[in-house]
Amino acid sequence: MGVGDVSKRILLGRKLRSAQLGETLLPKRIALPVFASDALSSVAYAPDEIFIMLAIAGASQYIWSWKIGIAVAIVMTAVIMSYRQTVHAYPSGGGDYEVATVNLGRTAGITVASALLVDYVLTVAVSISSGANYASAAIPAFQDHEALIAVILVLVLMAMNLRGIRESGTFFAIPTYLFMFAILGMCAYGLLQALGGSLPQAESAGLDITPRPGWEEPLSTFGLIVLLARAFSSGCAALTGVEAISNGVPAFKRPKSKNAATTLLLLGLIAVTMMISVIVLAKQIGLRYVDPHELSRLTMNGAPVPAGYDQHAVIAQIAEAVFHNFSPGFYFVVTVTGIILVLAANTAFNGFPVLGSILAKDGLAPRALGARGDRLAYSNGIVFLALMAIILIVAFDAETTKLIQLYIVGVFVSFNLSQLGMIRHWTRALETERDSAVRRKIYRSRTINAIGLSFTAVVLVVVLLTKFLAGAWITVLAMGFFFAVMKGIKGHYDNVERELAADETDKALPTRVHAIVLVSKLHKPTLRALAFAKATRPNSLEGVYVSVDEKETARLLEEWDDRNTGIPLKVLHSPYREVVKPIVEYATAIRRANPRGVVAVYIPEYVVGRWWEQFLHNQTALRLKGRLLFTPGVMVTSVPYQLRSSGIALEREEREEHRVRPGDLRRGRVAQDRDRQVPRS
Amino acid sequence: MGVGDVSKRILLGRKLRSAQLGETLLPKRIALPVFASDALSSVAYAPDEIFIMLAIAGASQYIWSWKIGIAVAIVMTAVIMSYRQTVHAYPSGGGDYEVATVNLGRTAGITVASALLVDYVLTVAVSISSGANYASAAIPAFQDHEALIAVILVLVLMAMNLRGIRESGTFFAIPTYLFMFAILGMCAYGLLQALGGSLPQAESAGLDITPRPGWEEPLSTFGLIVLLARAFSSGCAALTGVEAISNGVPAFKRPKSKNAATTLLLLGLIAVTMMISVIVLAKQIGLRYVDPHELSRLTMNGAPVPAGYDQHAVIAQIAEAVFHNFSPGFYFVVTVTGIILVLAANTAFNGFPVLGSILAKDGLAPRALGARGDRLAYSNGIVFLALMAIILIVAFDAETTKLIQLYIVGVFVSFNLSQLGMIRHWTRALETERDSAVRRKIYRSRTINAIGLSFTAVVLVVVLLTKFLAGAWITVLAMGFFFAVMKGIKGHYDNVERELAADETDKALPTRVHAIVLVSKLHKPTLRALAFAKATRPNSLEGVYVSVDEKETARLLEEWDDRNTGIPLKVLHSPYREVVKPIVEYATAIRRANPRGVVAVYIPEYVVGRWWEQFLHNQTALRLKGRLLFTPGVMVTSVPYQLRSSGIALEREEREEHRVRPGDLRRGRVAQDRDRQVPRS
Repeated sequence: MGVGDVSKRILLGRKLRSAQLGETLLPKRIALPVFASDALSSVAYAPDEIFIMLAIAGASQYIWSWKIGIAVAIVMTAVIMSYRQTVHAYPSGGGDYEVATVNLGRTAGITVASALLVDYVLTVAVSISSGANYASAAIPAFQDHEALIAVILVLVLMAMNLRGIRESGTFFAIPTYLFMFAILGMCAYGLLQALGGSLPQAESAGLDITPRPGWEEPLSTFGLIVLLARAFSSGCAALTGVEAISNGVPAFKRPKSKNAATTLLLLGLIAVTMMISVIVLAKQIGLRYVDPHELSRLTMNGAPVPAGYDQHAVIAQIAEAVFHNFSPGFYFVVTVTGIILVLAANTAFNGFPVLGSILAKDGLAPRALGARGDRLAYSNGIVFLALMAIILIVAFDAETTKLIQLYIVGVFVSFNLSQLGMIRHWTRALETERDSAVRRKIYRSRTINAIGLSFTAVVLVVVLLTKFLAGAWITVLAMGFFFAVMKGIKGHYDNVERELAADETDKALPTRVHAIVLVSKLHKPTLRALAFAKATRPNSLEGVYVSVDEKETARLLEEWDDRNTGIPLKVLHSPYREVVKPIVEYATAIRRANPRGVVAVYIPEYVVGRWWEQFLHNQTALRLKGRLLFTPGVMVTSVPYQLRSSGIALEREEREEHRVRPGDLRRGRVAQDRDRQVPRS
Repeated sequence: MGVGDVSKRILLGRKLRSAQLGETLLPKRIALPVFASDALSSVAYAPDEIFIMLAIAGASQYIWSWKIGIAVAIVMTAVIMSYRQTVHAYPSGGGDYEVATVNLGRTAGITVASALLVDYVLTVAVSISSGANYASAAIPAFQDHEALIAVILVLVLMAMNLRGIRESGTFFAIPTYLFMFAILGMCAYGLLQALGGSLPQAESAGLDITPRPGWEEPLSTFGLIVLLARAFSSGCAALTGVEAISNGVPAFKRPKSKNAATTLLLLGLIAVTMMISVIVLAKQIGLRYVDPHELSRLTMNGAPVPAGYDQHAVIAQIAEAVFHNFSPGFYFVVTVTGIILVLAANTAFNGFPVLGSILAKDGLAPRALGARGDRLAYSNGIVFLALMAIILIVAFDAETTKLIQLYIVGVFVSFNLSQLGMIRHWTRALETERDSAVRRKIYRSRTINAIGLSFTAVVLVVVLLTKFLAGAWITVLAMGFFFAVMKGIKGHYDNVERELAADETDKALPTRVHAIVLVSKLHKPTLRALAFAKATRPNSLEGVYVSVDEKETARLLEEWDDRNTGIPLKVLHSPYREVVKPIVEYATAIRRANPRGVVAVYIPEYVVGRWWEQFLHNQTALRLKGRLLFTPGVMVTSVPYQLRSSGIALEREEREEHRVRPGDLRRGRVAQDRDRQVPRS
């Protein structure tokens, strides 16, 4: 059964007054920036975390920095290779959630979903906090107000997403490519200077770092292992966001999976290059970087740094050194870094509704999230995300270092379950596959995913061990909460489904239709409702009027007789001006007298357009409808009468329908041009 | 046409599970306290205002205090006599608003209505502020926090009224009679002491009052007139609230008008006695009382009173003096005065919805306010009233003296229009009345109202002259605002009525009914909707399914064929998961193909009970219904399917319906006993 001829005609044959939703697939050069901002932006804070952790035992441990960078790069490579398998095996864009659900079952799927939900909140909190720190590096007046700036940024993002941004590839492409150019250019220029021996020193190069108590040299072997494990697990923040492409395969140009896999490889390459370059360069310029809460451990010639000392982010310090005699270079790097961080936060605002709609489809979230264009559902999700991020930002005073402790757990929980799911996927594929060439390919994929799993499993254990008490417990708790909520919703939907399941005894057809038309006045809406009700030829039809005033009643009865509609009018007396109750009771009584019949209640409604007009009309009709829904054997029919002003609301509705919603671009949907004339078929 | 036999059976023949609304008429002894608290409570602040105004020219002007009291008493007597005419002529409880509208036209009616609306806000602000001052007289810790206490009291009143208080006559009777007993008892005891020469002096008796600059003795004749005019207009605050009974005639026991008139007379007698007694006694104890902002004008032996001096309200000072060796007497008087003031504020919370429903009936306020039991409308009104009062209290720092400047204008505007209306009423009555005995009575009534008008007109002019710049302009502005809003609403309703007015060409009966049943799944609700739709025997009937997923669609089609319902299923494809748009477009297309037909859209709905279940169901149905209302020639039928949990909501609804709402008692309605078994007919 295809699209009906009638509906086809309207779909094609009318002038589009407003933008129409269509599919626009992304070429690789656009897809890369659309999906990469989150992953690439982590270079703005991940190296900082490695240096902070190593600094616990003093600046001498910075010799480990590039080795840890390499270790993180190896894990990232393994993860990227694994996800390349995923995009081939699951091109539908369900990502980790789909992989886990299909291969490991509902519980694993819900676990991944709750990890992802928590991650979206943390992506906003971490990226925006880091962005606020870059802003304060560029604009001294912002110093010590990072939390306030971060909150304002979140509110601006929220407002933009509520309002709806006309997203386009360019919107993502320009800042992302500028960021790549800025970071890679800076690193190249810096490394060239280093080779020429002319690389300037960082502003913090002259400082010494006092180790934390208990971490003085010489470190025990165990101490060193703990130190490196902590630095490594913090550095793994660089991996956040790489899974984005696996959720966006449907938005790629064909061949979708192949293009997505290539883009993923490209992303990995760029991310690893950036990270290693930044770490090496930071070491070269003699950077000294400690936990911003422990600035007193920074000393200059044995004395602590002055109280006003402000420690700038690693990339800001590199830019300052590399471009020490060319300040536009510094401002350019810091500005695009700030922008890319905000863009990364925006991806969470985009991804959240997409995940919501997938969860809704599976009955884990309110069903309304599943259909496109539910304004309320979208808005609630966006406000929820922003509020949670603001709470975190305020609670942790916009300190990236502290928020990072919460961040990585969720990411690696979903990495692990996803890799495990992929291994199961390939093992199952082997059960049926007989072609030896294909089997070889499957073995290869399974090996890649197994390597990915072993790496991510190790990282998850390290992260849990080193970060649980430092904040990861909050994440675990939040995941538990989301898990319980989704389980609860699923349970509710399942119960309802069982209660609603059709059975064979449920076919009894009502024998009689008793129609009543609510009459408040004898005006066009009432006459229309009477006409419509009459057209349905019910077994019995009467008007029903609730009388609260004798004079008015008499006048109405007279008018009714004059009209001579041939329909009897029933008057229900209501001395206390109650309108709803007499009607409900009357309908109930009719039904009781005819248990095999059905009562059809027709309610004339005016449709108005301006928002304040809503308060002036239909309130009683609304309450009545709400109340009649509880009455068995009753159906309620709204007969609308469109007032002239209703055109205003209709136009508003249509504008709303065609608006691009957060995440549409990532699903390969964009609004097409306005006022485009589509040829009539 | 009476109550239908079917509806009569349900009204009488079932066990009442919850309280049922009924009529309970008030005997005079209960009606007096129910309606009098507002009028009587003004004795708690009106005398204070007289003393403050006279003090402008120094304590020597206190010789005028009792004469001004007498003048106020004369005006009050005239007003009370006038209202006795009103309750006879207009026993329906419309009060000033009805009198002005019927006799002077719509504009006068709206003017009175806006005056009354402003007065309700000010009743709350003034009574509660005064109450907070009494609280701080009794509890020293409250001193200087009057505004905060007043705001908290308003919020408590708001919460109580939102929640719904089980009002009863006793609720009003006990505090009101205690208040009468306290004030009259105190005055009698004090005057006895005075006669015996043993009356103690007030705490402020030893003080001197420096006149305001320019008001030093000797006063010019013009100066004296201005002084007395100001004192008199402030003293007229004692008249606020006397109109309450004229709004409550329907709640009285029969003969309603006669009982109401008697109660009114009683109220006037008590109020006048109280006021004069308090003024005389205050003079006797040597009270010195100035504007609380000008405490520096109070001097003791030539030096200003110390900075911490707290000036207690007149009744508090009298109680302190009269009961100087019996402190329980003092606390009793002050406590019941505070309570009666809060009770007076509560009458505004009661009267506001009553006025709202009368205005709604006339199309001056949203119609929803007119029907009993519109929870939302009631709540909005109560919250609005509380917020406005809080704004005033905060803006004027809970200072009764300043708020009084705003208060009296509105009261006297409605007094004037009401008296003018009554004169017109009697004049008209004379035109038709031939019986000379009745004519004599009418002449007498008209004379009384004319006297009332002349007094209230003079007071209004005095009030406007003396108070306009001191704050009355705010009231005039607010009245203008309410006036404009009501005019606007009326205009809107009139426009809609014209647009909706039935004409003769509007009778064309649709010839065909094309029914479509929305199918999302094949479960009981869908089957019921199909059965109901089938029972209406439309000209054509089909199921409509929006396909967003091919697999699901195939499964549904298979199930549909298995069921063999005999109804065709139309599948609308929606690649972007839009549900609403394809259906709206399909309905539009059907209608376009059959301009003389009507499209009946049947939507299966589940009815759930718990509040959070609402979010999980029917959201799409709701949006769809909202959208289809804009489509001409379409009617929308909700076919409800009650889930087991819906019982919870039904019970909640029923509880809600039977709750007593603010103002019910004043309209003669109370909830009758729960679980009362009504005999089956």
